[in-house]
Amino acid sequence: MTTSSFPVDPVTLSQDLLRCCSVTPADDGAQALIAGMLEKMGFEIFSLPFGPEDAPTPNLFARIGSGSPSLCFAGHTDVVPPGEGWSHAPFSAEISDGLLFGRGIADMKGGVACFIAAVARILQERPLKGSVSLLITGDEEGPGHFGTRPVIEWLSQRNELPDFCLVGEPTNPAVLGETIKIGRRGSMNAEIVVTGVQGHVAYPHLADNPVHRLLALLAELTNRTLDTGTEWFAASSLQVTSVDVGNAATNVIPGTASARLNIRFNDLHTGAVLSDWLREVTARHAPGAEVKIAISGEAFLTEPGTAVQHLSAAITAVTGREPCLDTGGGTSDARFISRYCPVAEFGLVGATMHKRDEHVEVSTLEDLTQIYMTFMENFGL
Amino acid sequence: MTTSSFPVDPVTLSQDLLRCCSVTPADDGAQALIAGMLEKMGFEIFSLPFGPEDAPTPNLFARIGSGSPSLCFAGHTDVVPPGEGWSHAPFSAEISDGLLFGRGIADMKGGVACFIAAVARILQERPLKGSVSLLITGDEEGPGHFGTRPVIEWLSQRNELPDFCLVGEPTNPAVLGETIKIGRRGSMNAEIVVTGVQGHVAYPHLADNPVHRLLALLAELTNRTLDTGTEWFAASSLQVTSVDVGNAATNVIPGTASARLNIRFNDLHTGAVLSDWLREVTARHAPGAEVKIAISGEAFLTEPGTAVQHLSAAITAVTGREPCLDTGGGTSDARFISRYCPVAEFGLVGATMHKRDEHVEVSTLEDLTQIYMTFMENFGL
Ligand SMILES: [Zn+2]
Ligand SMILES: [Zn+2]
Repeated sequence: MTTSSFPVDPVTLSQDLLRCCSVTPADDGAQALIAGMLEKMGFEIFSLPFGPEDAPTPNLFARIGSGSPSLCFAGHTDVVPPGEGWSHAPFSAEISDGLLFGRGIADMKGGVACFIAAVARILQERPLKGSVSLLITGDEEGPGHFGTRPVIEWLSQRNELPDFCLVGEPTNPAVLGETIKIGRRGSMNAEIVVTGVQGHVAYPHLADNPVHRLLALLAELTNRTLDTGTEWFAASSLQVTSVDVGNAATNVIPGTASARLNIRFNDLHTGAVLSDWLREVTARHAPGAEVKIAISGEAFLTEPGTAVQHLSAAITAVTGREPCLDTGGGTSDARFISRYCPVAEFGLVGATMHKRDEHVEVSTLEDLTQIYMTFMENFGL
Repeated sequence: MTTSSFPVDPVTLSQDLLRCCSVTPADDGAQALIAGMLEKMGFEIFSLPFGPEDAPTPNLFARIGSGSPSLCFAGHTDVVPPGEGWSHAPFSAEISDGLLFGRGIADMKGGVACFIAAVARILQERPLKGSVSLLITGDEEGPGHFGTRPVIEWLSQRNELPDFCLVGEPTNPAVLGETIKIGRRGSMNAEIVVTGVQGHVAYPHLADNPVHRLLALLAELTNRTLDTGTEWFAASSLQVTSVDVGNAATNVIPGTASARLNIRFNDLHTGAVLSDWLREVTARHAPGAEVKIAISGEAFLTEPGTAVQHLSAAITAVTGREPCLDTGGGTSDARFISRYCPVAEFGLVGATMHKRDEHVEVSTLEDLTQIYMTFMENFGL
């Protein structure tokens, strides 16, 4: 087995990936680049396009080895649009003053490159003890219907779910090693429209003021303490983001009133139960009111076990930092994976993700590669 | 004393007044017409312009007789603009199918004409036993700063306040004889603007949601039962007429939120005490919030005494109806008079007041003239 062409340098591998202009839903060769390298390293490659036949979402699953322990690294090759005003062209992967610039370097081509480099370095030394796989989708930043979700289901149907899944999203706010994500809060939006009976303020008995009904139901909703948080989650929070009537006449009771609210909820709740609650409270105060609900994602949590301990130890060994285990922030594809197997997220520093001049310190690519290597060793691979 | 030219016909007198195009602040000869007739009838005339020297509000005070009992009839010659779409020209005083059309016939040139005719008819027969006066302003429909208010104060300063004041506003909703007004509710408007700290819904602890503060204070305001009404007044009522945030972003906690409300209050309250309450509740839930208050008028009431009994008996004698004593509806100049002497309001049918094709049944002018005559006789004049 010759290993000289193995992609052991995360910097050049990151640069190769950055030069693919893979703005969702485009791929621009990113997945083929990864598949080619993994194939050379001995991985079995599965190309798993899902979705409409004329424009399927490109997905890649690749595995090496067999049996236990089995680790899957999940990530994405697509990026959000670069926008304007970059000081370095967003797809030219320039290095300047120790910083590597490019759309997607933090979120999350850099993380993918580091994991591939970490596996390549181990394989240069020795065979793996269990199995390692990569689940790479081309649609994490878009709707995501045909990305990680059907791929993990495909694995489940083949009884090939890993023991643990590591997602390489940029979890660190400012410095590499700060934060492992072990879950995320759920999020839902609701719009409530109350219709009453318009009238004159001098004759309130002839009207039915929808503002008063809306105020009463919103008061009940906001007065409830959803919970006080859990060991791993902050308290769930309901925020009324807008109330609108638009009645300019001071002597007129309006005919309709509407409100919008968002709930960020932990794993003590589900979107369905919260929806029932919203509808019940609304119906009690304003029978017939319209309630539109959109659940963006359910809360999920992987109770930290030995895998997260191994990951944490690897981070401390390389960076000297004790990462905190966090469940804050926005959502990621980990929400799909969490339904099937334990999952945690750790990657680069995300300070510039989705912004112009997205970049990471070049040195963090080497550090993350070593963290991933150490983690795999700790994990028993 | 010759009485042949006395204005004993309320219909022709109403028509003469209707043909004066006295849209506030114009007078167009209306007050001179009245002054001329009253002077012929033996009244002493006081022209009492108040306000800016270049555009004073025309006011007329006229009195005949002296001593007790003393009755003042208060009214106005100005009218609201006619607007469009009349089937009969608004200032031509046309009679058609038993109806007299014209801007101001109900509100309230017809009432003024009927009272003058009633006095003229009595004077044709006999001298008055006490004194009768008329307080006629040219600005009741406008701001009213220089109308009835300074005239009644002028009377007060001269120690010439009457025993009772009858205001000739159109108090009957549909049929002559239905309603005497013995007071009116007060009215005030408030606007509350709460400023918080904008933020992301995922990080509510970093924001200060002004919507939640506004909801809490509005809930406290609307939950209070101001009162359950009195013998003469309906319950006071607070109506929130608008709540506005205008935040379209579902993931953003907005920076400001505002609400508007109106309070119609009876004589258990004053605008000042209610204002203090609004400010206190607001400050407790949202320190620093802005509260703008405009008091349109205080509540007032003349507890019904013998004068109202005489008026009621006169109405029943002429129309066969038992008028109800009411405090509902909008405001009138009676609110200024009530601070100085007992006052009640009774006039024509107001169904078309302030609308196009304002009109009254011609026969009601004769009926109201007889009601005013009978009242004056009952009153001891
Ligand atoms: Zn991402
Ligand atoms: Zn009027």
